[in-house]
Amino acid sequence: MINFKTVTILRAFLCFTLSLVMSNSVAQQATKISPGVWKIVYGEQEAIKPSDFKAKEMADAMGKLPAGNDVPLVLKGIKFSQMSSGVLAELGMEDNERFYGFGLQVNTFEQRGLRREIRTNSQTIGNLGFSHAPMPFYISSKGYGVLVNSSRYVNFYMGSQHKLAEATAGKETAKANEPGSSPEELYRNKNRSSSNVEIQIKGAKGMEILVFEGPTMRNVMERYNLYSGGGALPPMWGLGFKYRAKNTFTQAEVLDFSKYFRDNHIPCDMFGLEPGWQTAAYSCSYVWNKDKYPTPDSLISIMNGRGYKLNLWEHAYTHPTSPIFSAIAPFSGNYKVWNGAVPDFTLPKARAIFGDYHNNTFIKKGILSFKLDECDAAYYDDGSGEWSFPDIARFPSGMDGEQMRQSFGLLYQKTLLDEYRKENIRSMMEVRASHLFASPYNAAIYTDMYDHGDFVKMIINSGFSGTNWSPEVRDIRSEEDLIRRLQTSAMSAHMNVNCWFLKNLPWYQFERDKNNKDILLPNAKEIEQKVKKLIETRMSLIPYLYAAFADYHYKGIPPFRAMVMDYPDDKETFKLDNQYMMGESIMCAPFINGASTRDVYFPAGNWYDFNSGKKYAGAQKHKITMSLTEMPMFVKEGTILPLAKPIEFVSPTTVFDITCKVYGNAEVKPVHLFEDDSNNFGYEANKFAWLNLNWKNGKGSTTRDGKQVKKLYNISSWSKVE
Amino acid sequence: MINFKTVTILRAFLCFTLSLVMSNSVAQQATKISPGVWKIVYGEQEAIKPSDFKAKEMADAMGKLPAGNDVPLVLKGIKFSQMSSGVLAELGMEDNERFYGFGLQVNTFEQRGLRREIRTNSQTIGNLGFSHAPMPFYISSKGYGVLVNSSRYVNFYMGSQHKLAEATAGKETAKANEPGSSPEELYRNKNRSSSNVEIQIKGAKGMEILVFEGPTMRNVMERYNLYSGGGALPPMWGLGFKYRAKNTFTQAEVLDFSKYFRDNHIPCDMFGLEPGWQTAAYSCSYVWNKDKYPTPDSLISIMNGRGYKLNLWEHAYTHPTSPIFSAIAPFSGNYKVWNGAVPDFTLPKARAIFGDYHNNTFIKKGILSFKLDECDAAYYDDGSGEWSFPDIARFPSGMDGEQMRQSFGLLYQKTLLDEYRKENIRSMMEVRASHLFASPYNAAIYTDMYDHGDFVKMIINSGFSGTNWSPEVRDIRSEEDLIRRLQTSAMSAHMNVNCWFLKNLPWYQFERDKNNKDILLPNAKEIEQKVKKLIETRMSLIPYLYAAFADYHYKGIPPFRAMVMDYPDDKETFKLDNQYMMGESIMCAPFINGASTRDVYFPAGNWYDFNSGKKYAGAQKHKITMSLTEMPMFVKEGTILPLAKPIEFVSPTTVFDITCKVYGNAEVKPVHLFEDDSNNFGYEANKFAWLNLNWKNGKGSTTRDGKQVKKLYNISSWSKVE
Repeated sequence: MINFKTVTILRAFLCFTLSLVMSNSVAQQATKISPGVWKIVYGEQEAIKPSDFKAKEMADAMGKLPAGNDVPLVLKGIKFSQMSSGVLAELGMEDNERFYGFGLQVNTFEQRGLRREIRTNSQTIGNLGFSHAPMPFYISSKGYGVLVNSSRYVNFYMGSQHKLAEATAGKETAKANEPGSSPEELYRNKNRSSSNVEIQIKGAKGMEILVFEGPTMRNVMERYNLYSGGGALPPMWGLGFKYRAKNTFTQAEVLDFSKYFRDNHIPCDMFGLEPGWQTAAYSCSYVWNKDKYPTPDSLISIMNGRGYKLNLWEHAYTHPTSPIFSAIAPFSGNYKVWNGAVPDFTLPKARAIFGDYHNNTFIKKGILSFKLDECDAAYYDDGSGEWSFPDIARFPSGMDGEQMRQSFGLLYQKTLLDEYRKENIRSMMEVRASHLFASPYNAAIYTDMYDHGDFVKMIINSGFSGTNWSPEVRDIRSEEDLIRRLQTSAMSAHMNVNCWFLKNLPWYQFERDKNNKDILLPNAKEIEQKVKKLIETRMSLIPYLYAAFADYHYKGIPPFRAMVMDYPDDKETFKLDNQYMMGESIMCAPFINGASTRDVYFPAGNWYDFNSGKKYAGAQKHKITMSLTEMPMFVKEGTILPLAKPIEFVSPTTVFDITCKVYGNAEVKPVHLFEDDSNNFGYEANKFAWLNLNWKNGKGSTTRDGKQVKKLYNISSWSKVE
Repeated sequence: MINFKTVTILRAFLCFTLSLVMSNSVAQQATKISPGVWKIVYGEQEAIKPSDFKAKEMADAMGKLPAGNDVPLVLKGIKFSQMSSGVLAELGMEDNERFYGFGLQVNTFEQRGLRREIRTNSQTIGNLGFSHAPMPFYISSKGYGVLVNSSRYVNFYMGSQHKLAEATAGKETAKANEPGSSPEELYRNKNRSSSNVEIQIKGAKGMEILVFEGPTMRNVMERYNLYSGGGALPPMWGLGFKYRAKNTFTQAEVLDFSKYFRDNHIPCDMFGLEPGWQTAAYSCSYVWNKDKYPTPDSLISIMNGRGYKLNLWEHAYTHPTSPIFSAIAPFSGNYKVWNGAVPDFTLPKARAIFGDYHNNTFIKKGILSFKLDECDAAYYDDGSGEWSFPDIARFPSGMDGEQMRQSFGLLYQKTLLDEYRKENIRSMMEVRASHLFASPYNAAIYTDMYDHGDFVKMIINSGFSGTNWSPEVRDIRSEEDLIRRLQTSAMSAHMNVNCWFLKNLPWYQFERDKNNKDILLPNAKEIEQKVKKLIETRMSLIPYLYAAFADYHYKGIPPFRAMVMDYPDDKETFKLDNQYMMGESIMCAPFINGASTRDVYFPAGNWYDFNSGKKYAGAQKHKITMSLTEMPMFVKEGTILPLAKPIEFVSPTTVFDITCKVYGNAEVKPVHLFEDDSNNFGYEANKFAWLNLNWKNGKGSTTRDGKQVKKLYNISSWSKVE
């Protein structure tokens, strides 16, 4: 027990601490900078902030979201202070409050009780908050989001630390505890969250915080995405199937290999070349290796003719032999990565040199996409192997290495996407790092880490971060592993198989050595048929997914979302990190790590197995068993699901033949499909239409809003699932 | 190839970078602060620096080391600059320069090419430079040491990063490289060191650097240790064997169990109690649990009577039920650890409260030592499990959590060692963290990590850091593992077996479950005899080791040293991280990971197997095979090795019966033994003698310098090994 004297002394101590806080300069008042978006500033600001690279907000759509007029509660209680090592913000939390977000977190979902260190890194290094696209932005279950507008590493203590003064509150009884039987047992601090949120930026002299209002978590994310410029709207082919071929392939081998998909009628939209296409790859020359690729123009033309969209691997570390090296070096950081210059993409000059070259050499020649590798920094935990520019690097813009490390992936993708925009071409890229306000970018993040469970978490977390996530399929252990991973991939923003180390199809042989020696599986053709069916399912979902992305763009609704975002009042969803919503009506529940049976939680209402149509009553868990030929998707009652006849690839003349499946007997909600050119930015000039699907009195009908510039859909039939 | 234009542009860029550096405030001139110790200061200094807690230097001894009058070369070329995130120092290095040190590094030895992040942490987290006792202090093979006098995390880039401007130097040819076959292959950056040393302190506005002159690396360390106050001089019993018993033991069980060593005549000096002795342990009450230990005074008295020195486990996180909690809370940090207050040991008041209590309650009652656990912070890589106070913590002294994290272990041991000094008692403690200027402290660092190879590296690195290291024996896989680990432990500063989870002796049963169920090994008694012989070998080395520690104290010579420190011109020693010097004449080469054969490198001259007397010619490698009953030690030709008849424990009346073994026919160097009370600080008032051992014309003789206050040695015989 703590006696009165203790309380008195502690109270004195608390006052001393508070006075330390109060002695610092006071924060400016919070100001409204957009409907439902508030800003508060303390101290001296960073010269270059993430918001400096933000697209223009979608003002009209933001105006339609519910928003209050009063300063959000979380800002009213905020306390800033300057410490000798940096700046600190202290916020409170409620006892039953939960937190999500922090960008594309890899191995965690609910964030309360954790310390988060927002640092771009290609590996998580345990559970620190490191990620390819970590963001100083969290979303509260109380319906607000807190964003720190900083390019520095930002540290968040989400109730992970208890203040000494709390000892007097009697919340934790002072009991004499037996020593545990293992240090692990003693050290665990889980589920003992305090009620403090602390945010620290080391080396900073100020902090700018934006708060996004709800009232729901989904509203917070809608507002954030719209404020960032609206969600990404990929070209339709970007929703198709993608394949990346062996890095040693020559032009002839690519041309030969790529016949496979067409000959076997297996859908494939994008075909990717790995490092071998360049004269120098680590670092990069951005020059075709003519020994291996003698006539790139011809390659592009033949591949495009076959319906492939060609994608080129690269990174931004510019090799001394590159034609742009001399020009870009003066606009680069003062440290090399792999002997290459690191362009300072904050500078218009650097963007122009890099962008013009790529535009003239590749984009204008028909390259439709890039894979922007290695723009996260890597191996933080290996003092001899980290290959990034250091934190102490200086860039001509005035940014240091730390700030550039956080920003680099975002600026890199922006630089090339801006070039596509100049050509009025919509691309869908791959990129290995991103940061705040990336929502409008047509790019998917991927990784070298490979835990299937983490991949699912990342799909879910992508909805809290305004990113697209590609759980690419790569190393494969077995047929089961291949199919289950392909399923997850088919239920993601970006369906990609990356076989940069395999000569033959991965479904012909899983083992690398055997594959490259042409020793194929006896049942290769059998597996191929399963894979074909699976990819076809993805292709049939393109119109549905395209509409989900249009809603992402125009309304900010994340196309892939945590269950808790749609069912915020259902306790069962609070920690649900292995199932998620895809679009408005489909719930995905991937099977991972060899399981053929798993628990699936169904929120209130009826749900229907996508494969069999079997009905499940909601507000409960069901044990679900699924074979490898069934997709682990469940459709919400009251849904009109437009399913297309699978095509092999999206072409400028594609018209989807669609069957509308109507689920259940509850009230059926109208849905819409998005119809535009899909390869250009005409939609920004209102060259698009919404094709509305309605179901009333047992009969389907369509209407159209807007101007049809291109016919994309043919609604051929309606069917009922009950 | 890089053309002329590139060079011109890069030159311009280099000037731009340099001008950035030059625009900052200029560092003060370097000043000599002690013979061979130089200080340079840049910018605003930290309010509390590690040197503030330093003991008084050993001025006389320092005056005897060779020292120049000119500012060291490394300081002449130093460049400081202020970045927005912190302060930066840039130093050069020569092409063939090598680096060692950075405190008690765990898994690395030679440090060139590495990034080092000096951060106290109980786990290494890969290869970052984290350690229990990391120090911003490196030693160059060119014969100087660079110490950053900061309690902050300090980042060192030891040639790990290449500047862009270096591309023009033509050192790395710009060749088009094939993509590698694995990312690992591509990412490795090893052995491609640049010629820059960069030192950064984030969040700092200045930097103070001390440079220690050589001319040799050994001189650097001698100077550093003497500047720190001279090396530790443990009580003689501190060099004996130590055992820590099961944490659940009661007083009766301790009394019963401790009979074992005496009954079986197995040496044991210190007996340690683990957390169970307290009423509250995580955090700590510092109160005997009377349910289990009803009469502690009686326990102490009986144990002391049996020749045991009692050691109590604790950590400094003070539980609310502790009698000192109310008093210490106002002098503690504003965050708790395990519900305990964290005393600010920089404050005299905090030291007085904590120290007085420990003195009156334990030290005056006969407790001769403490194990100061958990004073490193732990689990940095686990966002939910790290149990330290956070970096944002504030301490009443003005220190923040980061500064305290680096300093805590050092201040904690100093606080209790100061109490022992008040009582004129020499202790030998265990402590899990330390920092700069710890050389004089009688404490050994230990860890929860357990790689045997790392343990050997840490013995070697202890010589570059002014620390004692205890490769304690704990979990055991096999008889072989037990014996080999015990051998390494016997060849270290602190021979300790920590069986906090075992009811029976570890050599009676290795497996935890079986051990605790009294299921003992069939050959337990046989193993016991091997263990006994091994510990007896350690006991026979006490006079030799005590002399080595006296040389550490008075001359700064590290008792455990890298081979490269004694043979700096022998290339073969540059990377030798698995053998080391113990004292002046013994080379240790532990067998690890199941090996019974290993390569041992012998520097020039002849060497003798400690066990068999077999001679090995030096300047070459030999393949050595050793059984479990042989100690992997080799004696240098020309050595007089004083070996004692083993005793079971050191008592106030101990007189060692010594045989001097004289090795080889080369010139035999005289050696000395240190003779004093060994339990008190009388030696500081010149109450000690050096007993000199001489060998001339085939005959041994002794002389004595100083005043004999106590007879410790009886030289009973001389023998020759040829």
